[in-house]
Amino acid sequence: MGQQGQHLGRAAGGTVTPTSSAALRRANLSLVLRHLRDHVSRSRADIAEATGLHRATVSNLVAELLDRQLVREVGVEHVGAVGRPRRPVALHGAHVGALGLEINVDYISVHGSDLSGRILVERRIGFDTMGSGPDRSLHRLGTVAREAIETMRSAGADPAGIGVAVPALVDVARGVVTFAPNLNWHNLPLAARLSATLGSPNVPVMVDNDANLAAVAEYTSGVAAGTPHLVYLTGEVGVGGGIIVDGRLLRGADGFSGEVGHLPVDPAGARCGCGRRGCWETKVGLAALVRTAMPQQAYTPAGLPVSDPEERAKEISRGLVEGDRHMMYAVAQVGRWLGLGGSIVVNLFNTRVIVVGGYFATLAEWLLPHAQEELERLVVAGAAAQCRFTASNLGFGAASRGAASMVVNQLIDDPTTIMDSIPRPPVH
Amino acid sequence: MGQQGQHLGRAAGGTVTPTSSAALRRANLSLVLRHLRDHVSRSRADIAEATGLHRATVSNLVAELLDRQLVREVGVEHVGAVGRPRRPVALHGAHVGALGLEINVDYISVHGSDLSGRILVERRIGFDTMGSGPDRSLHRLGTVAREAIETMRSAGADPAGIGVAVPALVDVARGVVTFAPNLNWHNLPLAARLSATLGSPNVPVMVDNDANLAAVAEYTSGVAAGTPHLVYLTGEVGVGGGIIVDGRLLRGADGFSGEVGHLPVDPAGARCGCGRRGCWETKVGLAALVRTAMPQQAYTPAGLPVSDPEERAKEISRGLVEGDRHMMYAVAQVGRWLGLGGSIVVNLFNTRVIVVGGYFATLAEWLLPHAQEELERLVVAGAAAQCRFTASNLGFGAASRGAASMVVNQLIDDPTTIMDSIPRPPVH
Repeated sequence: MGQQGQHLGRAAGGTVTPTSSAALRRANLSLVLRHLRDHVSRSRADIAEATGLHRATVSNLVAELLDRQLVREVGVEHVGAVGRPRRPVALHGAHVGALGLEINVDYISVHGSDLSGRILVERRIGFDTMGSGPDRSLHRLGTVAREAIETMRSAGADPAGIGVAVPALVDVARGVVTFAPNLNWHNLPLAARLSATLGSPNVPVMVDNDANLAAVAEYTSGVAAGTPHLVYLTGEVGVGGGIIVDGRLLRGADGFSGEVGHLPVDPAGARCGCGRRGCWETKVGLAALVRTAMPQQAYTPAGLPVSDPEERAKEISRGLVEGDRHMMYAVAQVGRWLGLGGSIVVNLFNTRVIVVGGYFATLAEWLLPHAQEELERLVVAGAAAQCRFTASNLGFGAASRGAASMVVNQLIDDPTTIMDSIPRPPVH
Repeated sequence: MGQQGQHLGRAAGGTVTPTSSAALRRANLSLVLRHLRDHVSRSRADIAEATGLHRATVSNLVAELLDRQLVREVGVEHVGAVGRPRRPVALHGAHVGALGLEINVDYISVHGSDLSGRILVERRIGFDTMGSGPDRSLHRLGTVAREAIETMRSAGADPAGIGVAVPALVDVARGVVTFAPNLNWHNLPLAARLSATLGSPNVPVMVDNDANLAAVAEYTSGVAAGTPHLVYLTGEVGVGGGIIVDGRLLRGADGFSGEVGHLPVDPAGARCGCGRRGCWETKVGLAALVRTAMPQQAYTPAGLPVSDPEERAKEISRGLVEGDRHMMYAVAQVGRWLGLGGSIVVNLFNTRVIVVGGYFATLAEWLLPHAQEELERLVVAGAAAQCRFTASNLGFGAASRGAASMVVNQLIDDPTTIMDSIPRPPVH
């Protein structure tokens, strides 16, 4: 009697969702595309069987999608002796682009794909976002986006949506960065500003938290892809979390879920940059590791984050390879705190896999054994709730990749937008 | 561009769900019943519009459901000048019973309803479960269940499913209590044992965590019913959590989500009964309050929980009314720790409402102001992520009520089981 993700009844009198025939067409087109997104290729009969739609309805929908080149036929597949040959179709949309961007403390990254996920552009550009302030940062982001759009267009794909990842609390519905502590941005209407800079008001821009979008990338194409209960932790100066529950990104009531960095874990702990005491970030953020592992590097001028974080992580990695005992001690200590934070996640979410990125991934072989041991000690369900830490292999491109995936998901959720607004592609 | 609960795409090659015509019929019957569960009454045309099913399909499904008395017609509603009169239908199933039970440290509670949620039996029986051991406890539970079933049958409803709430880690798929620390039960096959005791192998028994089921009851019919992001906290000697996310009960990978009691919140804190240090339960469990508020009552023989917890909570309540400063101090302290734990929940889940039960509800007017203040101080998103603590008004019946709701949800998710197995009711 499994009830995973069961929708609960509630008191009578809830809101009604009116469904017009346009909405029904949209829902059915989306149903077919979602099914094809999750499979290599499928026959019309397979689609009808899996979706519960009538065969004739599926044929009409597929014809429309073929006409718009959002799907394509992929050869002939014979079934049985009496069956007619079934021509499978696959997701296509080579002319429909999805652009993902990430703007973080010291870089901008870009990931552009077409509707089927084929990668068209992937870049990472060093940029001092924090030092540049929001105006110059947005200008730079706009330039990078324009270049990526040109590259995608020259590959035949016109971006139909743009996603931007930011290390921030984001008002997703309005596309506003509410607060980005490490960028020092407050209430920045990023979606509107970027749209204006690009001069393309018809291409929707969505903004989301970097850890949320990296979690989407991990779920879509990372080392633990397809794991329905998965959490992603960023390992930078700040630590953020993206949470996948039942194969869905958890947003919560306002889009502010997964704020792991400031979980209170030590009432007697050090003062955090946020003003509170004993936040988890003060135990596992890169600054905490640097402070213990290489104290001579830790004291940057007040208010500034660790300088050149990647270089610091690499230095520590070199020290560990050389057997530096001071550094060994430091990673053991940080690893245990990582495990403690992981146990909070597992006790609450019963997560199967915690994928770690950033410096956690760089130092995974030293950090994760300690983290795993502490996790197992602190999880109440013990061995019954198996959860493992694992290092991401998506590197610094995870969030921009996730942003592009999110755009693809939105286009597939409402394909009529691309079917009605993008010029029909030339037939070759 | 809201994306609440969006289903994410994943790497190609996922499992296929084959859909037969029987499965399609089941899905459509369920779709109609779910729609009626969430509304007082609806016309066939309304149902067709809201579900996207054809009018003729809806008429056939409704005819079948009327024949089985799972729905009933509820009068005539006229629409417009040219429209034909629409006869709305409503959820019925007065002959289909759902029995919810809870077995906890010192009581057994019962909540029986029919398919439409009409209450047929509600009882609470004091019982020393911990002192009685599993065999005698199961015997007593069986007797209570049999009596409830008789009461329901005499009201015309034959139980089609039984749900049991236990303060435990539960293997929901197998109906086994993995570990109930406060009952001292280990790997108890509760579903199978209760089925055997009742001699009704065709009535499915499901077992779940008490906090999970209380959360379902709160979402279905509590003070914050219908709030999609809601967390329920039990306030007993032990503290458990049930988590509703996007209107669904969060179970996690193995059904062990919401284990709030042993979140590590103080590395320098007291040793917990679980062997770890500084668990949240050591700060907010009833024993913590009693220890500070009335130290003369706190030292029960080692290993036993606080004796007569409800009486202790009432004594403290009386002391607070009288202005006892020692008790005032104690509730302020426990209230702040309650707020700290709440902030962990809100930082991770971005929950809108935290409903508290048990002694937290009894002492709500003294505890919750302190908890709310601390919550607001510790939530990273600040005022942007509004969450309020509120006291449950479902009392000790929350979990058994939730268990009955869960049975109703399961029957509605697969109505063919009741349509095929329960004798067709006599037509009056």
